[in-house]
Amino acid sequence: MKAIQVGLLGIGTVGSGVFKVLQRNQEEIKRRAGRGIEITMVADLDTARAEAITGGKAKVVKDGREVIANPDIDIVIELIGGYGIAREMVMSAIAAGKHVVTANKALLAVHGTEIFEAAHKKGVMVAFEAAVAGGIPIIKALREGLTANSIQWIAGIINGTTNFILSEMRDKGLDFDVALKDAQRLGYAEADPTFDIEGVDAAHKATIMSAIAFGIPVQFDKAYVEGITKLAAQDIKYAEQLGYRIKLLGITKRTPTGIELRVHPSLVPAKRLIANVEGAMNAVVVQGDAVGTTLYYGKGAGSEPTASAVIADLVDITRLHTADAAHRVPHLAFQPDQMSSEKVLPMSDVVTSYYLRMRVADEAGVLAKVTGILAAAGISIDAMLQREAGEGEKQTDLILLTHSVREGTMNEAIAQMQGLPTVLAPITRIRKEELA
Amino acid sequence: MKAIQVGLLGIGTVGSGVFKVLQRNQEEIKRRAGRGIEITMVADLDTARAEAITGGKAKVVKDGREVIANPDIDIVIELIGGYGIAREMVMSAIAAGKHVVTANKALLAVHGTEIFEAAHKKGVMVAFEAAVAGGIPIIKALREGLTANSIQWIAGIINGTTNFILSEMRDKGLDFDVALKDAQRLGYAEADPTFDIEGVDAAHKATIMSAIAFGIPVQFDKAYVEGITKLAAQDIKYAEQLGYRIKLLGITKRTPTGIELRVHPSLVPAKRLIANVEGAMNAVVVQGDAVGTTLYYGKGAGSEPTASAVIADLVDITRLHTADAAHRVPHLAFQPDQMSSEKVLPMSDVVTSYYLRMRVADEAGVLAKVTGILAAAGISIDAMLQREAGEGEKQTDLILLTHSVREGTMNEAIAQMQGLPTVLAPITRIRKEELA
Repeated sequence: MKAIQVGLLGIGTVGSGVFKVLQRNQEEIKRRAGRGIEITMVADLDTARAEAITGGKAKVVKDGREVIANPDIDIVIELIGGYGIAREMVMSAIAAGKHVVTANKALLAVHGTEIFEAAHKKGVMVAFEAAVAGGIPIIKALREGLTANSIQWIAGIINGTTNFILSEMRDKGLDFDVALKDAQRLGYAEADPTFDIEGVDAAHKATIMSAIAFGIPVQFDKAYVEGITKLAAQDIKYAEQLGYRIKLLGITKRTPTGIELRVHPSLVPAKRLIANVEGAMNAVVVQGDAVGTTLYYGKGAGSEPTASAVIADLVDITRLHTADAAHRVPHLAFQPDQMSSEKVLPMSDVVTSYYLRMRVADEAGVLAKVTGILAAAGISIDAMLQREAGEGEKQTDLILLTHSVREGTMNEAIAQMQGLPTVLAPITRIRKEELA
Repeated sequence: MKAIQVGLLGIGTVGSGVFKVLQRNQEEIKRRAGRGIEITMVADLDTARAEAITGGKAKVVKDGREVIANPDIDIVIELIGGYGIAREMVMSAIAAGKHVVTANKALLAVHGTEIFEAAHKKGVMVAFEAAVAGGIPIIKALREGLTANSIQWIAGIINGTTNFILSEMRDKGLDFDVALKDAQRLGYAEADPTFDIEGVDAAHKATIMSAIAFGIPVQFDKAYVEGITKLAAQDIKYAEQLGYRIKLLGITKRTPTGIELRVHPSLVPAKRLIANVEGAMNAVVVQGDAVGTTLYYGKGAGSEPTASAVIADLVDITRLHTADAAHRVPHLAFQPDQMSSEKVLPMSDVVTSYYLRMRVADEAGVLAKVTGILAAAGISIDAMLQREAGEGEKQTDLILLTHSVREGTMNEAIAQMQGLPTVLAPITRIRKEELA
């Protein structure tokens, strides 16, 4: 089957990420989607940059209207941003019968009603997973994963810039102005950071989640928006003493009298998982009446994380337009004729790191023998802990953390150490995963 | 449009949850799905119990084959469990052209290949969101939300019983046997807990995730499975001293030589979010090459959390068979003609709790005046912190945490307190969200 033809409007940070990831993972994506997905046309004012990124693999033009006018294009990705030309392009693409994928939260939070109506009438999809929380599939979770629930509330860290600044303020006791400058220097905040630090970006996203959760139209004008610019380092400190962290939360909640929709700094109990989301990461907590509390965490911005969401939307659209209805999503994610025969490794071939605890005689030379066996096997030690033997005690616990090694190698080393006369009990071995 | 007719096989803990949630949220679910979803037939050996739960709203029979033979039934939910009769019923339902929704991880991990093949040939869906991590939409995230990615690894706390036991062991310094008895007494572990504590249940789930992530067939027989029965309290303590927590992880990883698939206790750095998942909660970390690290957290078991996943599958199937292809999922989750006009509240009508910091004169009577104003407004105080004034200092900080109150009421109280001559600077007010 012919590949789905995609036109890309705007090849900046996110756009280039979409192009790169589609290239890099094209085989795997095709095995999932049941059909190739190709960006065949790119519109960007900076055509030289666009040519450099696409390397001749897509036709580059200056004017997005050329992309929309091309009858071969099935899907248009809008990554221009803002309300002006982006809105015009999205509406034209819909009018031309193209499906649209966009990351433009501002556009949807303000003009969503008009856009979705037009799309519905025309019978095309406007997909926007990338508009909220970057690579985290939170739109999918809300629209599809939690459909059984009456959603009670959503609270999210949905702006990475402000979460980075707040983390810096807390970690280093910095005032807002200083932390902002750090964030700008490190690329976590833009030269004009207003939309982020004043809470506007978070409010766009909260507005979209509110509509999806409660079945109300997008109404950004009704959102209460307060940023983090007035936060003082001392408040973060006092909050800490009281057992809380301060986070900029986007909140929407169903109450008996109406829907709450608000963005402002919030004290959150330090023991909550979301209070421990640090740096530029995002997380959204959703409370449903059946499911209880769920949380979704990941990178909320950046080139490839956002591209991940844009491409997921492309695959969604592709699957709907290629597979037979009953198999929109293949049972095991990949098309049945595209399964891999890659083998599952036996445990002895797994490579991981280890915690070892051994009961040893409290005498000279024990450690040398143990570490000698490990060194001979090429196993290096990451950390060590020796419990001090109590008075009169002749045994003690020796605990080692190792670096990564093949399990088979570790098995042999353990057998050898177990054979030492100074190792007095069966060695305890627990695997260690850094998950980094 | 006529409601989708669903037949339920097995109305135990999860089945009764499915029935209850479908009843309770039927209007909202219909607004999302575009069509009613009704359980019209239930098969259970305990027909008296089934009658009591369904209250005459569904036909109750003893034999699941009657449900499958009913031509009016569109979808069959299998909640029998195990490999025997459940397998027979699932295969018969597929053969009869019914879509199947199941929470049966054991069945899919062992017989998934046969089942999915039969479903594919017959053109029906076998949906199984509830089979892994209960109410967390992790199957959807992997199959649809992260399709852009080459998945690198998945590591999950996917068995609530063992995570509860490990949390108890750590919190209270208990040995495994004692913590297990506690878990059994509290209903977190079954009378025969073998499948949970030996890691078999987690391995079933890891096997399913492995297949979806890497496009390989389900192959439970290749999984390495080690439970938590041999864990000693002292290892949890030593791990803690080294900066780690011990969790039972289901891990699957792509390596240059093959796929790792293993379940065993693992040391995890205490600073990782997943290390802080306590009690019977589940969490899954997915590492993709584009999106980076994402995490999904929620209840992994229980009547309504699992029902949440089962019903999400029902809605998925319903949407695919009713809406036009282009609008399988409505843009804003609810059908366009089913949007609510519920109003968004002005900020003054929002009810929340507060952190207040005020710069006050360090003299007698200040606190009485402040608390007097709050009491008169009906605002009760949750906690208080007063910074000790330094030597010679005549001012100090007074910090109050309040219970919930209407924002409008709080605004008035703040204005009054601000008017006190002993309040020396603008009062800082930050909202507080317990998120519980």
